[in-house]
Amino acid sequence: MNHYLAPVELEKAYRLINHGPTALVSSQYQGIEDVMSASWVCGLEFKPAKLTVVLDKAAYTRQLIEKSHQFVIQVPTARQAQMVHYLGTHTRYDEPDKLETSGVELFRLPEIPVPLVTDCAAWLYCELIPLEQNQNEHDLFIGEIKAAWADSRVFRDGRWVFEEVSEEWRSLHYIAGKRFYTTGPALDVE
Amino acid sequence: MNHYLAPVELEKAYRLINHGPTALVSSQYQGIEDVMSASWVCGLEFKPAKLTVVLDKAAYTRQLIEKSHQFVIQVPTARQAQMVHYLGTHTRYDEPDKLETSGVELFRLPEIPVPLVTDCAAWLYCELIPLEQNQNEHDLFIGEIKAAWADSRVFRDGRWVFEEVSEEWRSLHYIAGKRFYTTGPALDVE
Repeated sequence: MNHYLAPVELEKAYRLINHGPTALVSSQYQGIEDVMSASWVCGLEFKPAKLTVVLDKAAYTRQLIEKSHQFVIQVPTARQAQMVHYLGTHTRYDEPDKLETSGVELFRLPEIPVPLVTDCAAWLYCELIPLEQNQNEHDLFIGEIKAAWADSRVFRDGRWVFEEVSEEWRSLHYIAGKRFYTTGPALDVE
Repeated sequence: MNHYLAPVELEKAYRLINHGPTALVSSQYQGIEDVMSASWVCGLEFKPAKLTVVLDKAAYTRQLIEKSHQFVIQVPTARQAQMVHYLGTHTRYDEPDKLETSGVELFRLPEIPVPLVTDCAAWLYCELIPLEQNQNEHDLFIGEIKAAWADSRVFRDGRWVFEEVSEEWRSLHYIAGKRFYTTGPALDVE
């Protein structure tokens, strides 16, 4: 158990993804787990807290979510980049042992029916708000954020403190190919 | 006219926003223009290229888009942070001279019916795909990207080259309050 894992108020949960990081999506249905990477994760509403995620029909994780209506969005760190890339470019449909090969480690939290990815910076547990047209025509899924946590070394008092920790804690921002950008310096306006 | 403004292939246009930057949204209807900031802009589809943007009902720009079905998403730079914050925290409903006060400068491109914001790093001209339920219940708008351009000093050959230019060219990633993060160093995986 990560002793730095701390709850985040739901009304501030959007801040965990507001800077546009690449995310990991985990889900589970009938004992089968999967994790995929997703660039297209975005805030949708402050209260009740909601987000969107685009899940391609080729993604094994997608059908777990369609069946279970539950998923976790996590914010991985620079030190996990290789794993994030692997999880985003391989599918459990072709590689049943994808999770083992990727090196991803999962953990559980009480009352949360979805496994979470170890060593991420933040986690948002979501329940699907099913909207057939969006899902079928646009691969677009809406989740209501029901619980959120962050590693208090890098997010505390409702804000990221990237500038106080080493660069390996920075979020990832995927572009294409094998390239990510990491989150850079803070810039405060007047 | 910015001589560095260069077209971007539509199939690579998603790369302009894939790293999750804070965006500026411009629109026009019957000669009335507006520009707002939006954190919640996200890729949706590669081909045909589409994106989503969340537009609050309190935003003046929103009703221009609802009427004209046209808008431009632009990627501003660190040097524009103060203006971006102003455009995101003031509405033309309360301040008819918001654009003048913000200092934003607009320009036009042939055959593009929406004004574009000067000195940004990228521009994506979109036509609205109207979906009443998404717009009314979730403030969620889907646009098809019909044309895209970037400043070739910072995006060329289909990719960002932030590492080759000064830090004032970096994208902005808004969190909350008066804080942005800027795009940081590239991280390439194997």
